Amino acid sequence: MSTSNTLELIEFRQQCQQRVDQRLGAALDAEIVSVTLLEAMRYACLGGGKRIRPVLAYASALAVGGELAAADNAAAAIELIHSYSLVHDDLPAMDDDDLRRGKPTVHKAFDEATAILVGDALQSLAFQILSTEADALGANNRLAMVQLLSQAAGATGMVGGQSLDFEAVGVKLSIQQLEQMHSLKTGALIRCAVLLGGMSCGSSSNSQMSALASYADNIGLAFQVQDDILDVVGDTSQLGKPQGSDSDKNKPTYVSLLGPDKAKALANSLAEKAIAALQGFPTSADPLRELAAFVVSRLH
Amino acid sequence: MSTSNTLELIEFRQQCQQRVDQRLGAALDAEIVSVTLLEAMRYACLGGGKRIRPVLAYASALAVGGELAAADNAAAAIELIHSYSLVHDDLPAMDDDDLRRGKPTVHKAFDEATAILVGDALQSLAFQILSTEADALGANNRLAMVQLLSQAAGATGMVGGQSLDFEAVGVKLSIQQLEQMHSLKTGALIRCAVLLGGMSCGSSSNSQMSALASYADNIGLAFQVQDDILDVVGDTSQLGKPQGSDSDKNKPTYVSLLGPDKAKALANSLAEKAIAALQGFPTSADPLRELAAFVVSRLH
Repeated sequence: MSTSNTLELIEFRQQCQQRVDQRLGAALDAEIVSVTLLEAMRYACLGGGKRIRPVLAYASALAVGGELAAADNAAAAIELIHSYSLVHDDLPAMDDDDLRRGKPTVHKAFDEATAILVGDALQSLAFQILSTEADALGANNRLAMVQLLSQAAGATGMVGGQSLDFEAVGVKLSIQQLEQMHSLKTGALIRCAVLLGGMSCGSSSNSQMSALASYADNIGLAFQVQDDILDVVGDTSQLGKPQGSDSDKNKPTYVSLLGPDKAKALANSLAEKAIAALQGFPTSADPLRELAAFVVSRLH
Repeated sequence: MSTSNTLELIEFRQQCQQRVDQRLGAALDAEIVSVTLLEAMRYACLGGGKRIRPVLAYASALAVGGELAAADNAAAAIELIHSYSLVHDDLPAMDDDDLRRGKPTVHKAFDEATAILVGDALQSLAFQILSTEADALGANNRLAMVQLLSQAAGATGMVGGQSLDFEAVGVKLSIQQLEQMHSLKTGALIRCAVLLGGMSCGSSSNSQMSALASYADNIGLAFQVQDDILDVVGDTSQLGKPQGSDSDKNKPTYVSLLGPDKAKALANSLAEKAIAALQGFPTSADPLRELAAFVVSRLH
């Protein structure tokens, strides 16, 4: 990635972050009667985070010839699912983390009951946004997006992967088992972000969607391998969570399985495969291409 | 309610329970990779419960001239949302209950992390069923059902009410505040069950939907008042949870606010209003009428 591409990507990411923050801020408004719940939902969602999934959704919309605005609802919905999963993940009964994005986690800043309810409400809101907001898309497309998000979020996707992750504590997994776990736990939602972005302009072809799916599968796995690397080599202030918090819990990681060098080589090769999947796309897919490189070069 | 009506209602309820159990059993199948998650989801959802919300959805479909089969997806989706809320409600950080429907709660039978994930996955599955299953309804209707369910389930509905309930512990509420809390906490989902049932045959008129909404608002509140009465006078073996578990927690209830006699009179008057709202409906609305009487006469 050249310096000028890096600068352009930073600008693009900032633009996407602003768009999704605005959309989320509007959704988390005064219609919510419980003051505590509204405050805690805003705390969990606004003003922080890499917004990598929304950025992917926006970049994917551009790649198929759409405009950024078309992906606002998809970006917000996917970030709501991601945010809820973090709130629940951090709970004492789950990963028991006190810090997230450099701030106290929701159950620390509020309490456990509120954190459980916040996660539950954020998930509902994701489906509300996809189903409620008036946009140029017809009902068939929007229903297909609800379907995709529900599959990616639930027992056949993210939550299924989280459960496999718990089942794996203290167990020596094969690389195939680790890949299956991560393809659900983090991959499903990243894949969904890319696909929802592609669907959001309503005119993407089947071959474009297949290419996006292939891009997304590779980038999703690359993202997880890089996360495992950062868990070992990153420092707490940059990560926003204690360094080594996953390896401490005796969870299998790509680094523990492959060693740091081979893990790094795997991440890079997955990013290259992701970029190769976009071969037929015009320059409007450049942000997606640059995001693939970013995912494996990021430091937190 | 005459004896023959009672017998017919028991039969109708059994028929509905079988239908929704079949639909839920099919949705909770082997496609879910995590063995623990699948087992715990089935434990949480199958083989128990009054299924009052599905029964209302089916009865509502009949009332507007539809067939039972049309409401299968609506009934299953609404029961999934209800089941997830029970699993999360029972958690130690929430109501801390060890028994539900006479069985150990999910976090007792499994563990807390699994119970959190089970609730999360059941919520996703509700939206997946509404958006995925092929039925005679068009995309516009199904999208409207997703919209309604997401609003009823989340911060503007059930979860918002749960949060208000927590905010109310140890606080002396006015009857209006108590009503607002319950209209969200339990009313929103009961209303949604009735409306989804009415929408599920795709041909209900606006005036029919308004009448169903009025029926549902009254029956929803009646349900809660009766719950408060049973919490004081019911016994643990029939309730499936420790008697007095709500009043012990210093939560405001209709009985603590009005006394048992006035609470009972309120429940009966709400059931009568619900039945009155169905004045224009043919005899196919009889199950809905009988359910209104059942809700305030039930012993658990």
